[in-house]
Amino acid sequence: MPVGTAASVKAVPQHLLEALDAQIILGNTYHLYLRPGHELIRNLGGLHRFMSWPRPILTDSGGFQVFSLNELRKVTENGVEFRSHLDGSSHFFSPEHSMEVQIALGSDIAMAFDECTEYPADRTRARHSLDITLRWAMRSKQHFEAHKNERPWGLELADQTPSLFGIVQGGMYLDLRRECAERLVEMDFPGYAIGGLSVGEPRELTREIIAETLPHLPADKPRYVMGVGYPDEIAEYARMGVDMMDCVLPTRAARHGLLFTSEGRVNIKNRKYAEDQNPPDPACGCMVCARYTRAYLRHLITAQEPLAAVLNTLHNLAFYLDTMRRVRAEIELS
Amino acid sequence: MPVGTAASVKAVPQHLLEALDAQIILGNTYHLYLRPGHELIRNLGGLHRFMSWPRPILTDSGGFQVFSLNELRKVTENGVEFRSHLDGSSHFFSPEHSMEVQIALGSDIAMAFDECTEYPADRTRARHSLDITLRWAMRSKQHFEAHKNERPWGLELADQTPSLFGIVQGGMYLDLRRECAERLVEMDFPGYAIGGLSVGEPRELTREIIAETLPHLPADKPRYVMGVGYPDEIAEYARMGVDMMDCVLPTRAARHGLLFTSEGRVNIKNRKYAEDQNPPDPACGCMVCARYTRAYLRHLITAQEPLAAVLNTLHNLAFYLDTMRRVRAEIELS
Repeated sequence: MPVGTAASVKAVPQHLLEALDAQIILGNTYHLYLRPGHELIRNLGGLHRFMSWPRPILTDSGGFQVFSLNELRKVTENGVEFRSHLDGSSHFFSPEHSMEVQIALGSDIAMAFDECTEYPADRTRARHSLDITLRWAMRSKQHFEAHKNERPWGLELADQTPSLFGIVQGGMYLDLRRECAERLVEMDFPGYAIGGLSVGEPRELTREIIAETLPHLPADKPRYVMGVGYPDEIAEYARMGVDMMDCVLPTRAARHGLLFTSEGRVNIKNRKYAEDQNPPDPACGCMVCARYTRAYLRHLITAQEPLAAVLNTLHNLAFYLDTMRRVRAEIELS
Repeated sequence: MPVGTAASVKAVPQHLLEALDAQIILGNTYHLYLRPGHELIRNLGGLHRFMSWPRPILTDSGGFQVFSLNELRKVTENGVEFRSHLDGSSHFFSPEHSMEVQIALGSDIAMAFDECTEYPADRTRARHSLDITLRWAMRSKQHFEAHKNERPWGLELADQTPSLFGIVQGGMYLDLRRECAERLVEMDFPGYAIGGLSVGEPRELTREIIAETLPHLPADKPRYVMGVGYPDEIAEYARMGVDMMDCVLPTRAARHGLLFTSEGRVNIKNRKYAEDQNPPDPACGCMVCARYTRAYLRHLITAQEPLAAVLNTLHNLAFYLDTMRRVRAEIELS
């Protein structure tokens, strides 16, 4: 899922996302709550209409940003008090409020409000974080079920009921992960995410947590790993049974000139590409590789041209989506 | 002509420029000479191939930027010594060198190297500037004619011979403008530009200089006014007989949130558009107006999303190109 933090997959017009055949994008509850505000988006008919994106949207719970963007957050049983990274103003997110915001946005897949455990965290800390995440998951579910039909648009679009996914936490402790997964499954969500990964732990550990947690989540419901990863990682996780992933890497790296290709990572700023007339990835058929050379893309980013972000992002997203298409075909054949 | 300063019409992918049906774009000799360098572009087969733009390209002579971006320039009969605005390095442009650079770029329409007279300039200053511009026009023409077939690509693309246009200077003195026009016409260029406008003079004066200069330029050859203007100005000048214009206004203003519409200028940052569900211009059929609302465009620029520049620029260019299409149809009917 391409990440569309603030109602835009950075630098890419929606019709080009459609041309890439992105099936679903992610919106960030925390960012949209702060700007332009979920009530404004609800008044305008929801996020799909606001940003002109008719395909599905998954929203995160805001939990990850509340924790990662706030030094001064204050966590209580009821929720989290935090300060806006934009203007320092005070805000409070509870499980119920996170649901209210996600419902106002018109999300198709909402996420339970969780406490994303930092890395490293000792067992006591991970245990505490797990317990509060489970209590918040129940409160999220109760509020969501009671209000999920309050979608921001009229009846004509209300044929699809949104879903709420639970999130497995538990730090890097396999038994806590297992316990969290089992207790979430008892609550019976229509899909499950593995959260609290890609928070600084070594890659081998990420893989291990995913491998050990997946068997405890039902294979006939979507299993979503949040915030991963490099192209080879997402291919590997998909082969292990992961159905959904999101990551800012293809879009953020693109803006810094890092391209993902069939030949590995290409730092397009490198002087060695100055006269390179090959496409960014000779094996890629995307609209960027079909038309432009490495020399041109290097020039654009060197000259700080805004087109650099547009073209680099288009290529990286195409490469990620192609990677997933290939894995999907592989799985179908096996 | 959309302005593509550094081998990119800022923020717009080439296939969307084609979708807008832009017939020709402008490249800046000064910028391309400094970065990535005209020799690099020649080695890669010329500017068309470098930026993947198969339609015509007009290049300016570098003169305007040498004068406007350089406090420390030194003008002699032979040419202009100046410092790079990028790194302060010393460079020298003569008429011959400007031609060499434009030929290396593979320009379809090159411009004579001129001294753009500042505003205000007294009669002595304007006279001097005019005289040197005429001598440089002759040197430009001689060098261009001798070398114009040295195009950067192979014979397969060499079927079209590039053209060199002369530039009328003369400050705000009607008799000097007339004299310059007549002496350029004696040199027999395939097209003529009126330069040294939009340099700070009042709009009425711009109009007067154009009106008084045009009759001294042959109506059966392209007449080009450089560096203008607002949508109503370009429509007016076209009705007066101007065939070509270029301006950074639609692209630069777009990046600052200023949209040109059938209802006048719209500063899309304005709070009053926060919940405005109308398209940027209800009378416009461009891909932006067909899909997005003012509320969304306001959000994008407020949130400093890179997509803001892309969409605002697409709309402004569509509006400018539509303006010219309407005037062209009017003229055909009259």
